[in-house]
Amino acid sequence: MKTINIGLIGLGTVGGGVVEILRRHADHYRTRAGVDLALVKCADRDEARAAELGIEPARFTTDASEIVNDPAIDIVVELIGGTGAARSIVLDALTAGKSVVTANKALMATHGREVLDTAAEAGVDVLFEAAVGGGIPIIGPLKHSLVSNEIQAVYGIVNGTTNYMLSRMAEAGLDYDAALAEAQERGFAEADPTADVDGLDAAAKIAILASIAFNSRVCLEDVPAEGIRSITPDDIAYAREAGYEIKLVAIGRRTAGGIDVRVHPTMIRAGHPLAKVNGVHNAIYVVGDAVGETMFFGEGAGSLPAASAVMGDVIEAARHIQGDCRALVGCTCSESLPLCSIEDLSSSYYVRLHVRDEPGVLAAIASVFGENGVSIASVIQKRAAEGDAEIVWITHAAAERDVQAALATMAALDALDSVGTVLRVEEL
Amino acid sequence: MKTINIGLIGLGTVGGGVVEILRRHADHYRTRAGVDLALVKCADRDEARAAELGIEPARFTTDASEIVNDPAIDIVVELIGGTGAARSIVLDALTAGKSVVTANKALMATHGREVLDTAAEAGVDVLFEAAVGGGIPIIGPLKHSLVSNEIQAVYGIVNGTTNYMLSRMAEAGLDYDAALAEAQERGFAEADPTADVDGLDAAAKIAILASIAFNSRVCLEDVPAEGIRSITPDDIAYAREAGYEIKLVAIGRRTAGGIDVRVHPTMIRAGHPLAKVNGVHNAIYVVGDAVGETMFFGEGAGSLPAASAVMGDVIEAARHIQGDCRALVGCTCSESLPLCSIEDLSSSYYVRLHVRDEPGVLAAIASVFGENGVSIASVIQKRAAEGDAEIVWITHAAAERDVQAALATMAALDALDSVGTVLRVEEL
Repeated sequence: MKTINIGLIGLGTVGGGVVEILRRHADHYRTRAGVDLALVKCADRDEARAAELGIEPARFTTDASEIVNDPAIDIVVELIGGTGAARSIVLDALTAGKSVVTANKALMATHGREVLDTAAEAGVDVLFEAAVGGGIPIIGPLKHSLVSNEIQAVYGIVNGTTNYMLSRMAEAGLDYDAALAEAQERGFAEADPTADVDGLDAAAKIAILASIAFNSRVCLEDVPAEGIRSITPDDIAYAREAGYEIKLVAIGRRTAGGIDVRVHPTMIRAGHPLAKVNGVHNAIYVVGDAVGETMFFGEGAGSLPAASAVMGDVIEAARHIQGDCRALVGCTCSESLPLCSIEDLSSSYYVRLHVRDEPGVLAAIASVFGENGVSIASVIQKRAAEGDAEIVWITHAAAERDVQAALATMAALDALDSVGTVLRVEEL
Repeated sequence: MKTINIGLIGLGTVGGGVVEILRRHADHYRTRAGVDLALVKCADRDEARAAELGIEPARFTTDASEIVNDPAIDIVVELIGGTGAARSIVLDALTAGKSVVTANKALMATHGREVLDTAAEAGVDVLFEAAVGGGIPIIGPLKHSLVSNEIQAVYGIVNGTTNYMLSRMAEAGLDYDAALAEAQERGFAEADPTADVDGLDAAAKIAILASIAFNSRVCLEDVPAEGIRSITPDDIAYAREAGYEIKLVAIGRRTAGGIDVRVHPTMIRAGHPLAKVNGVHNAIYVVGDAVGETMFFGEGAGSLPAASAVMGDVIEAARHIQGDCRALVGCTCSESLPLCSIEDLSSSYYVRLHVRDEPGVLAAIASVFGENGVSIASVIQKRAAEGDAEIVWITHAAAERDVQAALATMAALDALDSVGTVLRVEEL
């Protein structure tokens, strides 16, 4: 059994998990997985971190190129993230004939084609299971077991931060700010939560999943993303009255007109398996023409779960090196499907309006919806305060552009104080 | 691209699904999966079935050995089931150097070692994703992504028939017979439902999953199985009052004393993801030391879902043949862990007793539990009819042998009419 040498670049949260798992299981992998793995070198900007993880100085460097250029290293694990240095490291390692394992969603969602083409040219593997859903196996299943299907849709709760916040807003009535503060306190949200709460993290993940599921490249910049900043506990309560939960859902659908891909807070039926995914958990719900409905659930973040996926990929890459079987499954984007514009979307909508509590207001607003071809499924009127009311409208399937036109028109109504939350309803 | 020739043996429900998927997608697989598949021959005892599926006579035979002995065939798909003819077909095909894809849980749970050893010796693949959980990817994830973990436990709702029946008993109050009749009417249960309702189907599946998860061979005969015949709608109602659902759970746990593997109706907390898996759906909940908790959910049976898994394996086997990479991951049973005896189990128990409604009966029974070292967590007494009552006991963690001893002793009590249902409570 040939020893497979690993170079690890980035000793952050996930990198620490990789060091820990290898320490626990490198011996087991020889018997259980048939590969002999050796972590020969680690790189990080922070020397203190190496000491903290018990990595002896001889196996540590602050210069990542020492790993990329080391001919003894078979697999490079890139865990620094981002699209700057990480991109060069990954491309250089692949070009040097090393297999690469990465957890870098930004890189794969932005430069996925370049990375996969470079790997194919070099005849090596690039594996990135940890880029989506932490430890949950989802990229492997899509590229292997489920490849027999024409995938029709992928719906993901793929951001643990926002799912935790929405869960706490739902169960404890916290408002957005309180939920964010609690998430930050518990280590589930960054000091700057932008990437999570504005849906950008989820957008990168659905770009990756859609690219694989629909065999057609989708990039981060192709994904319209709305976050959860506008959601209030009242929205969640009203949604529940109507039988729905509000989740930040990353959506990818194969439609007759192309790929419909987007991220936004979404109302989904309370009985649907995705509606029951709470806290920091992630889940990816996949619909295929043969398999029907299937869902993958688990811990979407954290040191060891993400490192579990990284190490699964390392073992896979090592098996391929040992069996001289690299580059067996590369880029699956053999087609070039068009992307749908969100303006062409047809969906039900939830619209919460703040209005003056006076006669005729409901009729006036209903007229505007009607004039724009938006048919109403239900209306709930709530008194907010003396003289003020909230009206929650749920529409039948309507065109996004018609709903937006209706909202623009009703903005001119005297009786309308403001448009509160507007949510799309997804009938899964 | 080399054309990979497939021989399909068994044109039943799943075989029909395979024919259908290949008809839909063989062209897609060339571009999307990089393999060129041709279904060159099908075998079944029933000639009429071939005509029904639109298979021309030249590609059909009633003699499976024609496929096994055809040197032009690269992959044999075995879908006849059972451990008789299927075993010979699989072993002969492997020995002839063909890769084999099978959905045969009985074969893998009974002769798994022999089948995997034969494949290893011949240097070919044997893949069996469809043997557990229908279309749900679970064997692939356990052998690949999750192989980085030491798996601590696998809990499966892996029998759709009994899950459907228990769901209908819970939601519509049907009794066992009515639930079975309904399941049979809807095509979810066989005319002879024994394998499903007595837990034998689930036992074969957990034997397969445990063998992979714990790297140690578990055979069907090693799995103590209890079915759902004794469950009443009252049990389900009482369980719900205590915050539990009753599911037929196939359990595999790595313990200090060895592998704890068993199938029985089980009370699980209503909030647990497995408790929410209803109807014919299947789910497999896996706990690993790195990944934490993860769950795989989907349609556990049916023609196209099972065929989805079969075809995923066929594509995988074809990629390996094309890349000359067969036998990369074979048998993972590198260890020989002992099996726990169910008598050594420590668990909470639910015990429903029919008693005479007279003073002192509760105290008398409580004494028997106490004398046997079984501590009681809660007691609910229900009047059943004039003079009769039911007492539902939930114990703290207790030894199986102590609970059995207590039940044997209390059988002698005059006030005890009969022991109703005894269930184990699993705190997941």
